[in-house]
Amino acid sequence: MTALKPAQFLMIPGPTPVPAVILETLGRHPIGHRSTEFSGVLTEVTKDLQALGETEADVFVLTGSGTMAMEAAIANTISPGDKVLCLITGVFGERWAKIAQAFGAQVEKLESASGTAVDLGQLANRLSADKEKSIKVVTITHNETSTGVINDLRQIAHLVRKHGALSLVDAVTSFGAIRVPIDEWLVDVLITGSQKALMLPPGLAIVFFGQRAWAAQATSKSPKFYLDLARYKKSLSANTVPFTPNVSFVMALQKSLALIKEEGINKIQTRHLTLKTMLRTGLRSMGLKLFVDDEYASPTITAILPPGKLTVADIRKGLKEDYNIIVADGQEDLQGKIFRIGHMGYVFERDILMTLSCAQAVLKKLGCERLSEPTHIRFAGS
Amino acid sequence: MTALKPAQFLMIPGPTPVPAVILETLGRHPIGHRSTEFSGVLTEVTKDLQALGETEADVFVLTGSGTMAMEAAIANTISPGDKVLCLITGVFGERWAKIAQAFGAQVEKLESASGTAVDLGQLANRLSADKEKSIKVVTITHNETSTGVINDLRQIAHLVRKHGALSLVDAVTSFGAIRVPIDEWLVDVLITGSQKALMLPPGLAIVFFGQRAWAAQATSKSPKFYLDLARYKKSLSANTVPFTPNVSFVMALQKSLALIKEEGINKIQTRHLTLKTMLRTGLRSMGLKLFVDDEYASPTITAILPPGKLTVADIRKGLKEDYNIIVADGQEDLQGKIFRIGHMGYVFERDILMTLSCAQAVLKKLGCERLSEPTHIRFAGS
Repeated sequence: MTALKPAQFLMIPGPTPVPAVILETLGRHPIGHRSTEFSGVLTEVTKDLQALGETEADVFVLTGSGTMAMEAAIANTISPGDKVLCLITGVFGERWAKIAQAFGAQVEKLESASGTAVDLGQLANRLSADKEKSIKVVTITHNETSTGVINDLRQIAHLVRKHGALSLVDAVTSFGAIRVPIDEWLVDVLITGSQKALMLPPGLAIVFFGQRAWAAQATSKSPKFYLDLARYKKSLSANTVPFTPNVSFVMALQKSLALIKEEGINKIQTRHLTLKTMLRTGLRSMGLKLFVDDEYASPTITAILPPGKLTVADIRKGLKEDYNIIVADGQEDLQGKIFRIGHMGYVFERDILMTLSCAQAVLKKLGCERLSEPTHIRFAGS
Repeated sequence: MTALKPAQFLMIPGPTPVPAVILETLGRHPIGHRSTEFSGVLTEVTKDLQALGETEADVFVLTGSGTMAMEAAIANTISPGDKVLCLITGVFGERWAKIAQAFGAQVEKLESASGTAVDLGQLANRLSADKEKSIKVVTITHNETSTGVINDLRQIAHLVRKHGALSLVDAVTSFGAIRVPIDEWLVDVLITGSQKALMLPPGLAIVFFGQRAWAAQATSKSPKFYLDLARYKKSLSANTVPFTPNVSFVMALQKSLALIKEEGINKIQTRHLTLKTMLRTGLRSMGLKLFVDDEYASPTITAILPPGKLTVADIRKGLKEDYNIIVADGQEDLQGKIFRIGHMGYVFERDILMTLSCAQAVLKKLGCERLSEPTHIRFAGS
């Protein structure tokens, strides 16, 4: 037996903290997925997701990961040879490109420097230059989890719509944390996952699929079966699903959406913006350098450079061993160069204060000199 | 509030009854999937699955449904235009054909009459006739859930191997209930799901992928990303996964595999064969007619014809309303023609006796005359 220690606390960008009512639901015995009870849950979840996304688009809950939902978006809209413009601000923007390539698309990348957002002017120019309208689809990462950058989805989607292309949006780490009014912002396809702001463990993927996307779906030649959204649409019209879903997780999603409805997306958005500001102010007051400028800093994830000669591994190890708080390393090229603190979903001011205090103690223990007094941290939360 | 009633009992072919220790695990807070703790669980689950399948093949745990695992098997072995022979004994055999068609295969069907098994002589003849070895893949349903038929997988896979084709096997409702020695039976790819004999709720898919399948994988031109098993293999060599898995379910699978190891697959197989015999004897003693001959009756699911003028809906409704026991309708063409009782995984003799007694009471209440005395049912269990 190891010594008693505090429960593990996840300050990573997914899985994120899960409320007790969700865990209790997951611990209940599943019901049959062909039952009228389950049909009722499915209907309610569908309506609540549409309300949260402020959309009349169809929405489907799939069993799988966020990446799987991205693949569903691609496989249901493109055919081999189609031109896809991928707006890339990090690992997850790049993932869109990889999936599109796997499905035979002709991929063009519009890349931003790491830690910065999509340049709207550059995008507008690229689309204007496409006189023949050869770009059929544009992929967008709303909130780039690998760097902690939020893109101006509203502006981007408007530019894409004006050009006539379809917008496929990864909103995995934004949807449910901030307002994403899908129809008002002219988004065609939007995907998300269960383990972020929706406050469930990983296991479900969600795909919003609008009218214009259905037109593309009808002619798409990409092979698909489990991800064929036409099958989900047909089943959903009979309040059911084409394949056995994760019943337990769909029941838990019903609870999570009820919690979100109760708090209201405006309050939730304000909470996340406050958490972001608190965390950034607190980290800076400790002398730490943030990876992303305030201008496009994510409301749900913050990337930090390790100070002086300290390594990312030292800091992560200190937080884990001394306080059982888990923060994330950088991904791929950024591994060991930044550490990332997730603050999405079931996260509150006290969690930010706790993380800041513990981070400060760890840095001090590791011999980092440039620390401010705790008073600055308290000030950050005021 | 509705009146107190017994807990719902699932005698359907999935989801199936789930042990308390599994539910408790699902109700625990998830850990990060990039943690050393999770890597340890993944390593143990992988080894336990290989031991249960008596195989040195690679095995991957994917987040999704059994159908998704079937798609993984197809997408990783065939290219458009490849000839696939589908052995069809019901809905799930037909599903292989639909998936292969969706991926551009040239599909040939070898169909058995509903409620019967694959004819080995017919299969041997068809393969012998394929002098040019144009059949690259043969799809097999080990246990046909839609009818309650078990196919002779060992013989079928041997014929397929002798011919030189790859065998893709759906063992969703057999694996974990009876012995399926993958290597000894010469099976190349075998898939299963979490919500059957593995005693979890639905949410995970499992794919065993052997050496000969990897050779096909290397040249397969089917587009795939989330289901690209080469990505899973590469990640697993570093004890991790390429995409966020359902952490909670993988932790629960670890518990389930420990339970299975403790009981031992031979005892588990004996238990399922006993349950099958008890149920069939009991149902017959009540004057009911079974859909499938003893010769190829499934050890995990039994299909029954409704007696006289009674409907399947009447019987299902009676069992649900009076006893909160859920049994399944027939699927597609067999809807309303048979009802199906699942007996796989966490099911014991007392559950069969309960189901038989309740079924008898329901039939009596519905005015069915041809009932035997309860003594016959007791005899069935002896």
